[in-house]
Amino acid sequence: MGRVVFKKLVNVEEALEALYEHVKPHPLGVEEVEIKEAYGRILGEDVIARIDLPPFSRAILDGYAVRAIDTSFASETNLARLKVIGRIPAGEPPLLEVKEGECIEIDTGAFLPRGTDAVVRVEDTSIDGDEVMIYDSVGKGSGIAAMGSDVYHGQFVMSEGKEITAEKVGVLAGLGYHKVDVLMRPHVAIFSTGNELIEPGEELGASKIYDVNQYSIGALVQKSGCIPIYLGIKKDKIEEIREAVVEGLRCAHVVIMSGGTSAGISDLAYKVFDGLGGPGLIVHGIAAKPGKPTIIAAIGDKPIFGLPGFPVSALVIYDLIVDPFLRVMSGKKDEVRRKLKAKLATRHVSERGRREYLPVFLKHRRKALIAVPILGGSGAIASLSSADGFVEIPENVDLIEKEETVRVDLFSDARSADLIAVGDSSPISQIILEELRRSGEKVRAEFRGLEHGLTWIRDEIADLLVVCRPEGEPILDPSRFPSRLTNLRNFKMKMVWASYDKEIFYPGSTFALPRIGSGLRRYAEDSIRRRVKDFDVIETWSYDAAMDLILNRRATSALLPLYIATKYGVKFIDAFSANVRYLVCDEVLSTRVGKRLLRRIKSKELDLTLSSLQGIS
Amino acid sequence: MGRVVFKKLVNVEEALEALYEHVKPHPLGVEEVEIKEAYGRILGEDVIARIDLPPFSRAILDGYAVRAIDTSFASETNLARLKVIGRIPAGEPPLLEVKEGECIEIDTGAFLPRGTDAVVRVEDTSIDGDEVMIYDSVGKGSGIAAMGSDVYHGQFVMSEGKEITAEKVGVLAGLGYHKVDVLMRPHVAIFSTGNELIEPGEELGASKIYDVNQYSIGALVQKSGCIPIYLGIKKDKIEEIREAVVEGLRCAHVVIMSGGTSAGISDLAYKVFDGLGGPGLIVHGIAAKPGKPTIIAAIGDKPIFGLPGFPVSALVIYDLIVDPFLRVMSGKKDEVRRKLKAKLATRHVSERGRREYLPVFLKHRRKALIAVPILGGSGAIASLSSADGFVEIPENVDLIEKEETVRVDLFSDARSADLIAVGDSSPISQIILEELRRSGEKVRAEFRGLEHGLTWIRDEIADLLVVCRPEGEPILDPSRFPSRLTNLRNFKMKMVWASYDKEIFYPGSTFALPRIGSGLRRYAEDSIRRRVKDFDVIETWSYDAAMDLILNRRATSALLPLYIATKYGVKFIDAFSANVRYLVCDEVLSTRVGKRLLRRIKSKELDLTLSSLQGIS
Repeated sequence: MGRVVFKKLVNVEEALEALYEHVKPHPLGVEEVEIKEAYGRILGEDVIARIDLPPFSRAILDGYAVRAIDTSFASETNLARLKVIGRIPAGEPPLLEVKEGECIEIDTGAFLPRGTDAVVRVEDTSIDGDEVMIYDSVGKGSGIAAMGSDVYHGQFVMSEGKEITAEKVGVLAGLGYHKVDVLMRPHVAIFSTGNELIEPGEELGASKIYDVNQYSIGALVQKSGCIPIYLGIKKDKIEEIREAVVEGLRCAHVVIMSGGTSAGISDLAYKVFDGLGGPGLIVHGIAAKPGKPTIIAAIGDKPIFGLPGFPVSALVIYDLIVDPFLRVMSGKKDEVRRKLKAKLATRHVSERGRREYLPVFLKHRRKALIAVPILGGSGAIASLSSADGFVEIPENVDLIEKEETVRVDLFSDARSADLIAVGDSSPISQIILEELRRSGEKVRAEFRGLEHGLTWIRDEIADLLVVCRPEGEPILDPSRFPSRLTNLRNFKMKMVWASYDKEIFYPGSTFALPRIGSGLRRYAEDSIRRRVKDFDVIETWSYDAAMDLILNRRATSALLPLYIATKYGVKFIDAFSANVRYLVCDEVLSTRVGKRLLRRIKSKELDLTLSSLQGIS
Repeated sequence: MGRVVFKKLVNVEEALEALYEHVKPHPLGVEEVEIKEAYGRILGEDVIARIDLPPFSRAILDGYAVRAIDTSFASETNLARLKVIGRIPAGEPPLLEVKEGECIEIDTGAFLPRGTDAVVRVEDTSIDGDEVMIYDSVGKGSGIAAMGSDVYHGQFVMSEGKEITAEKVGVLAGLGYHKVDVLMRPHVAIFSTGNELIEPGEELGASKIYDVNQYSIGALVQKSGCIPIYLGIKKDKIEEIREAVVEGLRCAHVVIMSGGTSAGISDLAYKVFDGLGGPGLIVHGIAAKPGKPTIIAAIGDKPIFGLPGFPVSALVIYDLIVDPFLRVMSGKKDEVRRKLKAKLATRHVSERGRREYLPVFLKHRRKALIAVPILGGSGAIASLSSADGFVEIPENVDLIEKEETVRVDLFSDARSADLIAVGDSSPISQIILEELRRSGEKVRAEFRGLEHGLTWIRDEIADLLVVCRPEGEPILDPSRFPSRLTNLRNFKMKMVWASYDKEIFYPGSTFALPRIGSGLRRYAEDSIRRRVKDFDVIETWSYDAAMDLILNRRATSALLPLYIATKYGVKFIDAFSANVRYLVCDEVLSTRVGKRLLRRIKSKELDLTLSSLQGIS
């Protein structure tokens, strides 16, 4: 067989250290951009003011430029009277000089005339012929922005390497910068390897899946302040991968590939770097979960990161290893990742000797915050995209007890869930929950069947339980239902057997059935077994997917709600009726989201929507 | 005179309400972009999965696809033996079906063959001829990612209006999206008005200043998720402003102008909207500090915001009024603005009846956090750009006591200062502090003279006091120095009188002198007075600026350090020597930044740098 099994695993810090020994990241140099384009870029030069700001002492009020001493005794009852000898509009040079007993009318922003040291605001004056009467004394410097008071000529204003905020764009403009030096953005070549991968948008053939990593990594590369260059999908062939690496080294400062690094073909990955130059392969395998099959190599001063093929693993390793490297190059500081403490909602077993990065989502339980592990596996990008953060579990910990306090590293878009729905999946749920989502509630639907749902309700993780059962069949053992659940509403949904064939139940037929967790699977399978012996089942997560299977002739028949069969115009015969019950935890009913749910589930709009679907009542 | 004084001021909420009565912000519609370009955009459609993800049940390990039941008794001592009937590589359709006692070699990612329900990992097996020996039992579903287990066909995956994160780009790719609908970015036309304004990069004539607002607002508009269109600088003339508004309404969805809205020319601003259509002017003046001279108008469904001309006022009002409006249009959610509590470092008097937004910077004082008001005035954009956040002071509060706890709304780049230097300004300080900044310390320099410096040292705001005095002159009253100050080092700096004229002290001459706060101003002025009666003074904040003044013949002579005069090759005569002392608070010396300062100030590198500057020792 000749398969390589990983042996010399290093941890994340050791991996970075090994890389830094060969290649130290550093900014690439600067380029000049107009300040219109400078927002969000990283300053590539120290900014030292070449002018004063303001460049001259100026009025910050509309009023009269005076010698402060001439107003020193002014009050409401003892007006100061000064002769107005002229007016200075903003933008005009001040040609007059003010002497004792005189003043000049002045606009906001105008140059303070010689001899004056304060501006009296117009609201504190009134005009009497060619004199102005002043109701209040002003101090020296009042109503004035002194030359250089914001920034002085020669002042160190901003240092290289700082991100240019909107305010800093303003400072640069004020100092007369039309263009500014910013750090160049590194180019990062990205490709995916895998014979099973195809590009999004192409026809999805059997046994193929769409490439995720090129695009999620491309987006992360942008987040790290770099420019992605997409090299496409490569087959798991040494020549092709090698060519892509060479192409990446030619056109970019860093190369990231993903896939092709698991044990199955890792011997290929090894050979890719042979003969391209030193130092070659640096790290092969990381003691992290997920992310074990990671490789790091370098040719000359350009690093090559080989990330695992599984999307979640690739993202975790990118975050831990690639992102810190790229941010040194781009100069872009990492956003401060907030951390908070929460109680782990369920017991979690970890693998000793590997550091685990466990994605979790957050939920408020009364006043406390709980973190619920997301166990989608490292292929499950959608699960990860719904995570609020992760818990780092050290190598020497193999168990975290339920309710134990853990530290969660939050993602930037973290937000604890308002409502968690569990139980059996049903197309009705989507119609109900969609409206809650629209009104801004964060709703998580985790329809993994009644057993899982009851556990989460009992563990006080979930709020809403959906139970779907054939009509007349009891909901398992009613005594197992927590008493604090209130039945909000029952729906009836007519189910049919649909097919494009003449017959539905014949030997060798293949049925598309809802998966375990629909509440109907076992009953449906029994129904078939009563009519035919030899049959196959393809399990689907939704009725749309089941419809797809009979449309594509991958299944001969499907169990569908009546309204879906009629929508697609497929032939059908009656199967049975299902009851869909919505049960909610009592303590939720008094919350904002609980009240919204109650209103929604008993609303006329919902009745109207459902009445348009044949067979639902 | 005919000047208009603001009368009907509304607060921020009332202003927004008045605007919303006439114009409700809403997203503009969608455009299609490739997913490569989708990162950071706002989703313009609900994403409902049109396929299962994964699209078929697949191996997530390299190993053997088996019937789990065939391994149920396997252990290290009781191996299960299964016949290997073939191999399925990733990307290939599974042509074989597995029966009892059989298995198929399978690659990570490959299609799970018919009849199997688990994958045994290769590490738990060994090969014996055409059989594989299995050391451990596996459960049903083990080593498999089931079809639809990440996302099922028909699943509601993401809702319209959500920002597309890197993970979501991955989900879209996995679901086969090559392109995706995103919300269109609104176009925002921006112009500045003011006869004193010129474009950055142009020659700065007398009484002119560079336009700040177009560029800082342009950057903020990008931050709000919109596209800025720069219309340039307009004169304070009704026809020109009116033309610009019409042009803005033609090419953009929103118009923002700034300046031209203060009392001096507000009657112009009023007339701008006459005859352009309803509803016209909606708000004229806001009860906020800064930001009073704000106007809001609308023509048809397009709003026009007239922001104050002062850069800081413009930014505050943008933040309070324009940003919320634009973010509804662009769909971009505001970053969560963190808030924290701190003690106000100094007593602050506010104006009753106007809500004040007081910019502050943060400093750690032992374990507590203090907020120090930034009193640069509303023209001071550089001061604002150095703020960490602001304190909102309600209309009915006119005083906050020193040490009172306040809530600070943090800017995203907030970071408390590590070292605050105060006292007299000296060119030596920049050389010392620059290196600290390079090593990552956040250093604030607030050289506003000895009086201010002593106050901040006593109030425990500042850490480093710089005192510059003519040689032989005492540092005012030594008893006024807090005893917890340690003198780190003294420098001697030779000062000269420099000029391009033959003579320096003659009647009518104009001297460029360092400002009050340099420690030398009074002494220098006395020196001149002893030699000449009739003279003028221009105060500068730096010696570079003073040099500039004699270069441009705006001053006849300047007081400069010897090394600056020799650097520019200007003629000079000796003036006097100055002592520059660096005194540090004792408690700082044990901190990281304190140790760095100590090391720097006594370093060979500093000696080397200073010895290259003539006249410093």
